[in-house]
Amino acid sequence: MSILVVGSVAFDSVETPFGQVDNVLGGSATYFSTSASFFTDVNLVAVVGADFPEEDVRFLAGRNIDLRGLARVPGKTFHWKGKYGYDLNEAQTLETHLNVFESFKPQIPVEYRETEFLFLANIDPELQMDVLKQVGRPRVIACDTMNFWISSKPEALKQVIALVDILIINEGEARQLTKEVNLVKAARQLLALGVKTLVIKRGEYGVLMFSGETVFAVPAYPLEDVFDPTGAGDTFAGGFMGYLANTGDMSEAGIRQAIIFGSVMASFNVEDFSLERMKRLTYPEIEERYRSFKALTQFEELPALKGRPTGE
Amino acid sequence: MSILVVGSVAFDSVETPFGQVDNVLGGSATYFSTSASFFTDVNLVAVVGADFPEEDVRFLAGRNIDLRGLARVPGKTFHWKGKYGYDLNEAQTLETHLNVFESFKPQIPVEYRETEFLFLANIDPELQMDVLKQVGRPRVIACDTMNFWISSKPEALKQVIALVDILIINEGEARQLTKEVNLVKAARQLLALGVKTLVIKRGEYGVLMFSGETVFAVPAYPLEDVFDPTGAGDTFAGGFMGYLANTGDMSEAGIRQAIIFGSVMASFNVEDFSLERMKRLTYPEIEERYRSFKALTQFEELPALKGRPTGE
Repeated sequence: MSILVVGSVAFDSVETPFGQVDNVLGGSATYFSTSASFFTDVNLVAVVGADFPEEDVRFLAGRNIDLRGLARVPGKTFHWKGKYGYDLNEAQTLETHLNVFESFKPQIPVEYRETEFLFLANIDPELQMDVLKQVGRPRVIACDTMNFWISSKPEALKQVIALVDILIINEGEARQLTKEVNLVKAARQLLALGVKTLVIKRGEYGVLMFSGETVFAVPAYPLEDVFDPTGAGDTFAGGFMGYLANTGDMSEAGIRQAIIFGSVMASFNVEDFSLERMKRLTYPEIEERYRSFKALTQFEELPALKGRPTGE
Repeated sequence: MSILVVGSVAFDSVETPFGQVDNVLGGSATYFSTSASFFTDVNLVAVVGADFPEEDVRFLAGRNIDLRGLARVPGKTFHWKGKYGYDLNEAQTLETHLNVFESFKPQIPVEYRETEFLFLANIDPELQMDVLKQVGRPRVIACDTMNFWISSKPEALKQVIALVDILIINEGEARQLTKEVNLVKAARQLLALGVKTLVIKRGEYGVLMFSGETVFAVPAYPLEDVFDPTGAGDTFAGGFMGYLANTGDMSEAGIRQAIIFGSVMASFNVEDFSLERMKRLTYPEIEERYRSFKALTQFEELPALKGRPTGE
């Protein structure tokens, strides 16, 4: 089944301790779509400016990402400039030029409105609500957000959260949203808002997933060379949703496998700048990394203890 | 097989956002021994002052912890005072009164010198080396340390590290010791120093274990009520070493199960102040928590992907 994603397509300028790049292809919807396109068909709704090069259009189209909903309007494409310190865990935003994104009003093409899978990438929650009003009844709706919306539009955001099935946010956002430091307490609050599955991304510390009945924890793959974490969260979401849309399996076991595929894709994304690693990525590599996650986390069932030295 | 542990027995005064306690039983060797005593016999070498109450001696003895090596000398027992902020991840030391611990010179009773399992808790590396000179050839030697020794006695510490099989430290210590931010690189350096198994404790983020061939990652158990993390690291080490000494199984699978038992014990320890939770802990609870770790981390093998939407 295909996925509809609404989000940003942008140019990123990124500086890390290991190098820097300027005006490379980025944006939440770009990372999400590229990642998800390894698993399923993707329909992208976003807006770019007149400066968006054919080369980048061809890249997205070449990944079988449908671009009927990618509007091109006069003006400049959204540009983000950020910087990472040595711990690579958090981006410091240096500049944000919304440009054409400032007046973005997502128009969902009629062909996409009965989509089964919908991902609302990190954009203004009022725009996310707009999108929800334009679609029918997707089987699975997931969304992301960021600290900026949590502080500036908390009510609009809560209305969106009440309507989604899956909330994919990071640790800081979970704490900011609920005013709870403890993640179990934060999760309980968010699940009470109507979310069925809460996915908390923790950067180098992995992922925690809470649903009504269970908790699932996956470590991040311990990588030697982490070059650029930009887009890792959206790449995770793309792998996660992409796999779910591929199989349609929304069981606990299926969702857990989707979390692993999301983690697999994110672990590749950070190995190079921008989308470079995904451009070279092959299925054997994806499968090998999945197996590596299994080897990383595998341990045996409760063994029998020899004797009971002290205690009952 | 029994374990010999050399470390501190102390009184702790701890303040957390949820309450505080004064002069409660603590110390690295105390937490380690109590935890390990659920799995095997423990021989404890430490020093306390004249103020150490019979009640606490009875508690340790009641756990089948052999106290022949617990010296009692004139003076006051080691006292530590610390404070945790809301994130509960790191203790801020407010006061350290070494007291009798200042002139501690571990004397290993002759009956312990052929011990198969040795744990050198966090004490002066020169004292750790003293202990190594007094024992024969233990089958498994593990040690812990802290930032204070890494900066004040790095050469002495490296000599100890070269002689141990297992190094159990936290993330910050791994980075400080190797001057590497990246843990894979830090691990490679430490394994090159002679360590066979490196266990990196990451507080609420779990445990990473590196050996020559493999990496194992375990998340921390997501707890709702974390009251007091004091002693969690030593409690982890006690469960880990205790299980290894119980089975003698030093295979990769056995060491992984030991990591889980260490994590199980630490997850209980933080639920209450001091040793209170371990005082009430039962084997059914330990087993249930082990099973919970399995449920927390379990996922299925690589599935077959339906079709290959884009790519080879």
